[in-house]
Amino acid sequence: MAFEVHFRSATCGELTAKDIDREVTLSGWVNRRRDHGGLIFLDLRDRYGLTQVICDPERSREAHQIASEVRSEYVVQVKGLVKHRLPGTENTQLPTGEIEIVAQSIEILNYSRTTPFPINSDAIQVDEPLRLKYRYLDLRRPHMRDNIILRHRIVKEMRDYLDERGFLEIETPILMKSTPEGARDYLVPSRLYEGEFYALPQSPQQLKQLLMVAGLDRYFQIARCFRDEDQRADRQPEFTQLDVEMAFVSEEDVMGLIEDMLIKLIEKTTKKRIKQRPFPHLSFKEAMDRYGTDHPDLRFDLPLVEISDLAAAGTFGVFKSALSASGMVKGLKVPGGASYTRKEVDEITEFARTLGAKGLVQLAIQEGGTIKSPLTKFMAPEEVQAIVERLEGQPGDLLLFVADSAKVANDVLFRLRVKMAERLKQIDPEEMALCWVVDFPLFHYDEDLQRYDAEHNPFSGMDEAHIERLDSNPLDIRAKQYDIICNGFEVGGGSVRINVAELQRKVFSLMKMSDEQIQEQFGHMLEAFEYGAPPHGGIALGVDRLVMLFADEDNIREVIAFPKTQSAQDLLMGAPALVDDKQLNELHLQVRPQAQPKGERV
Amino acid sequence: MAFEVHFRSATCGELTAKDIDREVTLSGWVNRRRDHGGLIFLDLRDRYGLTQVICDPERSREAHQIASEVRSEYVVQVKGLVKHRLPGTENTQLPTGEIEIVAQSIEILNYSRTTPFPINSDAIQVDEPLRLKYRYLDLRRPHMRDNIILRHRIVKEMRDYLDERGFLEIETPILMKSTPEGARDYLVPSRLYEGEFYALPQSPQQLKQLLMVAGLDRYFQIARCFRDEDQRADRQPEFTQLDVEMAFVSEEDVMGLIEDMLIKLIEKTTKKRIKQRPFPHLSFKEAMDRYGTDHPDLRFDLPLVEISDLAAAGTFGVFKSALSASGMVKGLKVPGGASYTRKEVDEITEFARTLGAKGLVQLAIQEGGTIKSPLTKFMAPEEVQAIVERLEGQPGDLLLFVADSAKVANDVLFRLRVKMAERLKQIDPEEMALCWVVDFPLFHYDEDLQRYDAEHNPFSGMDEAHIERLDSNPLDIRAKQYDIICNGFEVGGGSVRINVAELQRKVFSLMKMSDEQIQEQFGHMLEAFEYGAPPHGGIALGVDRLVMLFADEDNIREVIAFPKTQSAQDLLMGAPALVDDKQLNELHLQVRPQAQPKGERV
Repeated sequence: MAFEVHFRSATCGELTAKDIDREVTLSGWVNRRRDHGGLIFLDLRDRYGLTQVICDPERSREAHQIASEVRSEYVVQVKGLVKHRLPGTENTQLPTGEIEIVAQSIEILNYSRTTPFPINSDAIQVDEPLRLKYRYLDLRRPHMRDNIILRHRIVKEMRDYLDERGFLEIETPILMKSTPEGARDYLVPSRLYEGEFYALPQSPQQLKQLLMVAGLDRYFQIARCFRDEDQRADRQPEFTQLDVEMAFVSEEDVMGLIEDMLIKLIEKTTKKRIKQRPFPHLSFKEAMDRYGTDHPDLRFDLPLVEISDLAAAGTFGVFKSALSASGMVKGLKVPGGASYTRKEVDEITEFARTLGAKGLVQLAIQEGGTIKSPLTKFMAPEEVQAIVERLEGQPGDLLLFVADSAKVANDVLFRLRVKMAERLKQIDPEEMALCWVVDFPLFHYDEDLQRYDAEHNPFSGMDEAHIERLDSNPLDIRAKQYDIICNGFEVGGGSVRINVAELQRKVFSLMKMSDEQIQEQFGHMLEAFEYGAPPHGGIALGVDRLVMLFADEDNIREVIAFPKTQSAQDLLMGAPALVDDKQLNELHLQVRPQAQPKGERV
Repeated sequence: MAFEVHFRSATCGELTAKDIDREVTLSGWVNRRRDHGGLIFLDLRDRYGLTQVICDPERSREAHQIASEVRSEYVVQVKGLVKHRLPGTENTQLPTGEIEIVAQSIEILNYSRTTPFPINSDAIQVDEPLRLKYRYLDLRRPHMRDNIILRHRIVKEMRDYLDERGFLEIETPILMKSTPEGARDYLVPSRLYEGEFYALPQSPQQLKQLLMVAGLDRYFQIARCFRDEDQRADRQPEFTQLDVEMAFVSEEDVMGLIEDMLIKLIEKTTKKRIKQRPFPHLSFKEAMDRYGTDHPDLRFDLPLVEISDLAAAGTFGVFKSALSASGMVKGLKVPGGASYTRKEVDEITEFARTLGAKGLVQLAIQEGGTIKSPLTKFMAPEEVQAIVERLEGQPGDLLLFVADSAKVANDVLFRLRVKMAERLKQIDPEEMALCWVVDFPLFHYDEDLQRYDAEHNPFSGMDEAHIERLDSNPLDIRAKQYDIICNGFEVGGGSVRINVAELQRKVFSLMKMSDEQIQEQFGHMLEAFEYGAPPHGGIALGVDRLVMLFADEDNIREVIAFPKTQSAQDLLMGAPALVDDKQLNELHLQVRPQAQPKGERV
């Protein structure tokens, strides 16, 4: 600690044998009190650690008396002498475990009621709503404290890394303009302009591109972003991203920078091993083929294998009907799975059904080589054998197949693959498997919207050789886009951008925006591109998710100081909440009256 | 630059004589093109500097041809050799002024229309609305680029300083709960909870205190804050503050930390001189008495002097009537002002009138010592002489007096003092005069609200010896509060806080909040204080204003990348704006219908 404060001369984490006989003042919380043989022992806690305080009535009757009154979580100040603990009573688990403070005086700085859950142990499971309501107590618990400290360190390292390389952190506004494209905006009514609204940014995408047009060359920001979407387990209404943009770059430049940064982050803030360096690059197609997802977990292998061509042989109805409906048959090899009990296989099948599969086709290769599978009834032995060989099946293996639309087959097998890896204990929690997914298509066709939609966002650039396909075959354009995946989570994505107004306009047109809509929503971008917009590109990394992975948590709420619930409530402050009519009046708003029977409007 | 990018091997700011004969690739904007003796000279610009490129048709006909087509603000890539400029043509003003690039090839990376204002000169005044609409061009101008870089450096230094001292940067939510106390909130309608709203934070005050209750010990955040107030010249709807909170501290601890940090910031990021170290401490009363304000500019002296006691003598009606209305008479000495012309004195008087003064009473001490003043008609010579002596008037000086209520007298003289310092050229723009203002009263009485109101905020702690005055004389309680002033601007303020629920409840009660209101709005704070809240305190510094002062700007918009206008508009993006009915419907809102004649509701 570089400077001392009024109420203490040392923290509860720093005193060791080198401090013996020092007179010190500590302040902190009573983590535990024990009365033993006429003495009182207090474990005093602060953010930095625990220090044992011993109160001996023969040394100070008054200190002993006060110590007898303190309870857990009282805030106390202790003055005393640093002494060696008695031989045999040292605690080697604790940095301060060799010493104790012999109290000369104790002052109670504040009292505490009995806390709604214990603070001094992470072992006890506490209901999350209770933890969120009393977040200020939850954050006292060691693992939450450690997560908050880790988050600080990760973000500090990000900033240092980028600053050293000439990036400027530039703040962009939170009060922005609503853009109906993309996710749902949070709106902020304007008081000065009746009926008008600001919107909270879903990302600073446009402004960071404008900063490149402004010539600022290298931008970053730890940026708060907002999406009013129905929440999933790992989403929050507001989230934090490391937002980066650079001028005069290719895709490789951005990926190279971020890869190097992530490696240094992991090395500096965790003890985790990086599975493969440089990070492998998978094309979008390879990722979908081999893992059924564009965010594969590469900590384990278990590849998916398509057998649609082989499945066309024989007369197996399940395969036939999937293929005739333009579907696919795809499988997964479970090493050693041939010995699973009927019950185990049923559980796996049931899991696949909850993911949308109609069922799983099984093929067990018994130790002797005998094949047990419904396929043997509908296919010739050599046709079955070809399938086994395609999956490199060995005696003892279980092969599982899904026959369905490509979407369902991939989605089921992607999740089944992870499930089986867990079951097979193929996941090393200390390993970080990172990869880049590249070669995305620029567009997909959105059947609901009946139009092309940008795979990443409408600002992504495209392979120069494919520009002419905008007019002929937009689905066949390679985007200059890259996603970074860690342990099966998409932790970031970006692109080299369009910087030519005409090209940008064409992309918007393909998304069925009218000229008026384009002008109204993105006119300022198109205009900016006409004043010397440099080639540029960037990326955004999800800070909450990265910290979650670094901290071995499985929920981003564990790495956010004051998160909202999955239903977007703040249980500590009580938000959202009703507001005064006066506030609404000033904003020219009223809450929409409930639908009333006709003729009885209120 | 720690890593190279695709489109360049060097920046436009780094090549010098040590690079002679290097083959380089530069990319940037054409700052200027000159055609001279068959050669074309391009000044190529990027964020890092300017480099001269010379295109000689004898070296490369093609490069020369392309160079003849480029215009200002085109983005070009130049490959060429670094060469010495011809002797006598070096530019010593420029780090790259010794060299030039002999172009081998030039590629136009993007075109530019003629910009709406010139980029390559700060000298030209451009209307601010035009600058804001084309902010991406405005930011290319050298002084804006430098301001953005300076801002990055200042904020980076703040973070490094606090990180080194054990502070954790912790993000607090932007979607918060509305607290009707204080300024007007920006509201965010909830989609999931009909008729309910989040509010954007005016500051993270409550959460940073809860982080101290959580035991996190040292918190900071570069925090975005929001106030929906009618804008003044130096206010924005959203602004940035360095928010700091620490446990186990006294007032001196917080002030000591911040003082040390500010000194290091100034030394590291500017060439300015700090007028006085350690920063002087003024009590609120001293500041008001001597400078008429609680944020005095100490770069110059010119103290205000009260003469109410002396003004009671004689029969001067202006003085008499002010004093009989419980007002005061206070004056300011203008050295050398006795020689001002009638016109000059009239201008000064008119300025005082615009500030609310009824007039200025003058007293000129002529070179011979003769006194010219209306006072001589109504006061005895020794009574006038006593006033002159009180202000230490010397021959040549002009004494100016305001007789009015304390509020008007102080406010007029505070501004008149600054005006006279400017006129007397007593302000050194390279000097930073910082001071602490302390010993604030905890409350003032708000006549409009007919109740006590917190001078700083309701969480400020108070002198322990004054606690009993909560019941007897609340206006006479010293708050544990401190403001930091720089060159006449309040750049920050904070306090050691209340950490006892009963005391906090009492403060709210004195502000005429009912028990229900207290519980509804601050129940979570009072509850938190009952679970071992440590002594704690903190401060918030206005980042925009600090950077403005460091950058010698007189408007915070000059140090914000994308500011809003004084009427809270974003001229670049076009916000606020109308939104789709669908969006409003999802939020259960409608814009309040215009008032209609009775019986004709629509």
